[in-house]
Amino acid sequence: MKNIEVVVAPEITPNYEVEGKLVVIIDIFRATTTIVTAMANGVKEVKTCLEVEDCIALKKQGFIVGGERDGVKVDGMDVDNSPLSFLDGTYAHQKFAISTTNGTKAIDMSLKAKEIIIGTFANLSAINEYINLSDLDVLLVCAGWKGKMSTEDFMFAGAVIASLPEQYCSADSADIAKSYFLKYVSNYKEKLDTCEHAFRLKKLGKQDNIDFCVQKDLYKIVPKYNTITKTFVL
Amino acid sequence: MKNIEVVVAPEITPNYEVEGKLVVIIDIFRATTTIVTAMANGVKEVKTCLEVEDCIALKKQGFIVGGERDGVKVDGMDVDNSPLSFLDGTYAHQKFAISTTNGTKAIDMSLKAKEIIIGTFANLSAINEYINLSDLDVLLVCAGWKGKMSTEDFMFAGAVIASLPEQYCSADSADIAKSYFLKYVSNYKEKLDTCEHAFRLKKLGKQDNIDFCVQKDLYKIVPKYNTITKTFVL
Repeated sequence: MKNIEVVVAPEITPNYEVEGKLVVIIDIFRATTTIVTAMANGVKEVKTCLEVEDCIALKKQGFIVGGERDGVKVDGMDVDNSPLSFLDGTYAHQKFAISTTNGTKAIDMSLKAKEIIIGTFANLSAINEYINLSDLDVLLVCAGWKGKMSTEDFMFAGAVIASLPEQYCSADSADIAKSYFLKYVSNYKEKLDTCEHAFRLKKLGKQDNIDFCVQKDLYKIVPKYNTITKTFVL
Repeated sequence: MKNIEVVVAPEITPNYEVEGKLVVIIDIFRATTTIVTAMANGVKEVKTCLEVEDCIALKKQGFIVGGERDGVKVDGMDVDNSPLSFLDGTYAHQKFAISTTNGTKAIDMSLKAKEIIIGTFANLSAINEYINLSDLDVLLVCAGWKGKMSTEDFMFAGAVIASLPEQYCSADSADIAKSYFLKYVSNYKEKLDTCEHAFRLKKLGKQDNIDFCVQKDLYKIVPKYNTITKTFVL
């Protein structure tokens, strides 16, 4: 029987068995949605950076770089952190580096995993298909917010688990996430529109980002971490 | 507006603002249930210990000491960790030290709080009344299991929040816990009977402990941490 668990914030990843597992990184608002959208629109590889400076430094290696602080594109960055910036294909065939604190922490804490993939509502069905075809136990690692649990990431974890067959045994964290998603299955978008991070994005005038990030199954791709290039590729 | 948040495991407590808050320590199976039951049955103060050896050493200071490993009372201990051991009042007027890893961690991580109290289903209404009468923001710190989220503690956190008036603003963690409890409000006992920790207790033949720990409102007491004696008192 395969096992699936949910890590609600990167900081407690060390308490879970990571080695040999399939890890799904979840940062709905907005890093993993932006990564999936960028790659679905032609970006060929994506690197995540903890610090803005590390990100900007990657320009020398030919990366398009993206980052915001307080909702405004940082000086020296080519793009902001919005998935919407990639919809017109401007950055197709380019390498993209994104500055994201919580998302990068989630990846850094998961490096002992057998495989690391990127999940968001936009590729939910593709993620489920990938998990189903894999023999590995699964860890859904939520980026959360500054080490705290966040609704949007936990809701997505629940959406993943709710679609899996019963062959997965239910750890407490997985069972709670699944219950939570199923409670809101018919109105999860409205629920996510009122969570803490949604309010932060609204204050920055980014309602369009929220609306985009909660849409299911826009793309059929699964970005996967390459341990040699240390980037996500298809 | 008062704020309430849920910390799913002691290890992420540092990511939450603890200073100046009212912290409720939650370890349903079984430390906080045992502490509340012991004190409701006459035990005058309770100390928690991370290590069995530290606990046994307290016998010299006149403490009755309790601890189990793999469900069996540890050599040198006076009692096990079961709340049922205190029901007949044998230990009334005594001091009790309990060896509990996750519960002690939860307390140790919360020492900067303004007040620390002990919560469990057995004193749910008393906890709610205490929170309502307090002006402090609240942190519900779940002991969890080895740094992981656990159903019984998170469910209780949700039960606390579900009973509070709307004056508490809803952080994501609080909203998820409340939603989770409300989903199972009519059958939370059955739900808790199937969680990971319940299965561990069943394997040890402790169904009677599970059944006792999920009962609401047996006692009207709120054990509170005394920073001078470093024990819980009434």
